[in-house]
Amino acid sequence: MSFRIAILGAGPSGLAQLRAFEAARLAGTEIPEIVCYEKQSDLGGMWNYTWRTGLDAYGEPVHGSMYRYLWSNGPKECLEFADYSFEEHFGRPIPSYPPRAVLRDYIMGRVEKSGARQYIRFNTAVHWVDYAEETGKFAVTVRDLKQDELCTEEFDYVVVATGHFSTPNAPYFEGLNQFPGRVMHAHDFRDACEFAGKDLLLIGSSYSAEDIGTQCHKYGAESVTFSYRSQAMGFDWPDSFTEKPLLIKVVGKTAYFKDGSSQEVDAIILCTGYQHHFPFLPDELTLNTHNRLYPEGLYKGIFLEKNPKLVFLGMQDQYYTFNMFDAQAWYARDVMLDRIILPDETAMAADSTDWISREQKVDNPFQAIDFQAAYIRDLLQPTDYPAFDVEGVAEIFKQWEHDKEADILGYRNKSYRSTLTGTLAPVHHTPWMQAMDDSLETFLSEEPEVENLALDAVR
Amino acid sequence: MSFRIAILGAGPSGLAQLRAFEAARLAGTEIPEIVCYEKQSDLGGMWNYTWRTGLDAYGEPVHGSMYRYLWSNGPKECLEFADYSFEEHFGRPIPSYPPRAVLRDYIMGRVEKSGARQYIRFNTAVHWVDYAEETGKFAVTVRDLKQDELCTEEFDYVVVATGHFSTPNAPYFEGLNQFPGRVMHAHDFRDACEFAGKDLLLIGSSYSAEDIGTQCHKYGAESVTFSYRSQAMGFDWPDSFTEKPLLIKVVGKTAYFKDGSSQEVDAIILCTGYQHHFPFLPDELTLNTHNRLYPEGLYKGIFLEKNPKLVFLGMQDQYYTFNMFDAQAWYARDVMLDRIILPDETAMAADSTDWISREQKVDNPFQAIDFQAAYIRDLLQPTDYPAFDVEGVAEIFKQWEHDKEADILGYRNKSYRSTLTGTLAPVHHTPWMQAMDDSLETFLSEEPEVENLALDAVR
Repeated sequence: MSFRIAILGAGPSGLAQLRAFEAARLAGTEIPEIVCYEKQSDLGGMWNYTWRTGLDAYGEPVHGSMYRYLWSNGPKECLEFADYSFEEHFGRPIPSYPPRAVLRDYIMGRVEKSGARQYIRFNTAVHWVDYAEETGKFAVTVRDLKQDELCTEEFDYVVVATGHFSTPNAPYFEGLNQFPGRVMHAHDFRDACEFAGKDLLLIGSSYSAEDIGTQCHKYGAESVTFSYRSQAMGFDWPDSFTEKPLLIKVVGKTAYFKDGSSQEVDAIILCTGYQHHFPFLPDELTLNTHNRLYPEGLYKGIFLEKNPKLVFLGMQDQYYTFNMFDAQAWYARDVMLDRIILPDETAMAADSTDWISREQKVDNPFQAIDFQAAYIRDLLQPTDYPAFDVEGVAEIFKQWEHDKEADILGYRNKSYRSTLTGTLAPVHHTPWMQAMDDSLETFLSEEPEVENLALDAVR
Repeated sequence: MSFRIAILGAGPSGLAQLRAFEAARLAGTEIPEIVCYEKQSDLGGMWNYTWRTGLDAYGEPVHGSMYRYLWSNGPKECLEFADYSFEEHFGRPIPSYPPRAVLRDYIMGRVEKSGARQYIRFNTAVHWVDYAEETGKFAVTVRDLKQDELCTEEFDYVVVATGHFSTPNAPYFEGLNQFPGRVMHAHDFRDACEFAGKDLLLIGSSYSAEDIGTQCHKYGAESVTFSYRSQAMGFDWPDSFTEKPLLIKVVGKTAYFKDGSSQEVDAIILCTGYQHHFPFLPDELTLNTHNRLYPEGLYKGIFLEKNPKLVFLGMQDQYYTFNMFDAQAWYARDVMLDRIILPDETAMAADSTDWISREQKVDNPFQAIDFQAAYIRDLLQPTDYPAFDVEGVAEIFKQWEHDKEADILGYRNKSYRSTLTGTLAPVHHTPWMQAMDDSLETFLSEEPEVENLALDAVR
């Protein structure tokens, strides 16, 4: 097999692509030469925590949006790899909502068991990707950050696995430039302890707002005010939470909202989402999309229709995550191995149009979950990715939505049944609101967390 | 005159280059075609304040390191343009240490009087610069941020005026990744009010540490601890300040220092300097230097010896600022206009070697000031930049060093005499420690600032 593949990024999507080829190799298939470029010093992508914000040690934008004390906001049973269960990794069943370090350990476990690390060039940021019509090859220029040197290599396929939760979308509101306190985007949020005793304003009504707000409450914020553009989250919040319509302006420390009300606040966190951002792609190869279930111009949500040798993984709005990236990576692998033959551009566009018209009919989270389940089912059908119960997982997602609705501060105490192993997750030793220490050791220990000790440990 | 010049950046250095050509044009000289690319939406470079940190609205690194309530930390008499006095701009003498908005107004004033704005393409970030030996021309690729489109144009000269106070140098210290409070680089510092009542640790012993520390003190920080690598600043600090040797590690909120002492702190600010960072330059055209008085490989501190059609402005460590950028810009202009003929590469290198050997003999600030004065004098000699009293300005710098030494919280109440107009600056209506409002209006008003009113205004 004499062709070459570049994978851009060694987070969950890039690692899924490496794992897909590794699985083929172990099954006796000759695989192409693969180089995976990763700007961080380790694999794991978004699941690495960094204390840095803004720019990294080499002046590159910080990839990570992770914060301390982040616990999964969805059941682990929904993101389980079909070829590697949580039970296999940890040697026993664990609770349904693990903290970041535990999920990272799980992702790493599958990778380290395969030989994927050998393909990865760490501390190497992608600078530019060019495509030459004459040769049909990509020239990928990367910067070795430690040496501060550029180098260019040729590839037959490029897999863009750089994620879309790294470049903040941060709108300006009148008065932000004069606000006498911290103003930040969720991307730069690191430690809720900083906001203990503070009155917080969070702009946004999606996962970031919900999770950062509840987390700040857990670690001692005085009050949390959410401001929404179109619709309140509407959860049964404790008394120290308020939902307000959109922020109009800030004067001094006073925030004024569209309904005429106002509120004194100490800090403002913009939970206003992220931009798909590909500064390393020329205009004719880039993906112009927002956070939606079916990005336009991507056949099967993966292949750039204008040039299907350019592959995008994980660019969708996501209910399904790790197992969806797997499904995409196995499909992409089979296309690159000529096991699946892509139709012509017109047929690809027609297929996408069909999916997009289905997407447009989606108007609630339950339908969105079903849509994404159908999409994944469609990808799995022609590949040898281990069968998993896509619809069973969809049911867990729906149960999760109900559980959040019932108790926004308590839903993480719930347990769900793995569709792979059939095991019902054990109840965690400490209710989430009392679980202050997010370390892997404390999560996996048999002892309940002692509240004050844990608080002392983190403060 | 049929050649083209690209200027990268419309801050003080880039504007100096525009102004230099404009002065020639007004004197009847035919000037080349000039395009100035600026990624911000206005001119002024570092002197624009932004509430944003990390990435800007388009995902580009934020250029600015400015914070609210920043007052000049050197006398305005040291940075006065030789062709445009403060007195001319404001119509009367003003005090020696103006806040940011006042200095910005002054810089803008000269530019707006010339027609420089017409040459500037705003919201346009430089993506890549290439040089073709065959044609002797540069290809400059820029991104129109609003349209999100790349475009490439050819130029005969490229002037790099992108500054070197935008890309943080942020070393890791053990425990920073677990510190339960804000950890940030000075680049992201915006508002001292955020730290009222807090115990702060500032790592570094140069201008950022000194200024952010005194500013946080002014706006109510409980205590300020500085940590130095090689030498304490040694000012006569108030009791709430401490200087410690280098930080060894942080455990929880406790910082441990090299001398065995420790200190509880609420927030950590890395005042550890900046990197010269040119991600848009290929390896063979880049400038590898740190913050020094005479960067290696730059003839006259301006021209890349390997390719002198690539011009760098303001890349030095700076005592002199605006008038040094002018001196460089006038010299560079005269080279581009063939009024000054550059020697060959060997002769250029020999000249630089000579300067660098003089730089190596500098071992205190007074000698550094004299070194930079001699450098500027050398640049001014062959150009028509209006004569100014370089040595007189050096004397003011030396007086300033003495005044800081005598009273680190009070030196900004001093007045100095303009070498251009001969006028002694008036004393400001409000002592700096009581001047809480940094607006242009309050600074220029005749009335002293009423302390409580001012505090109310900013809090």
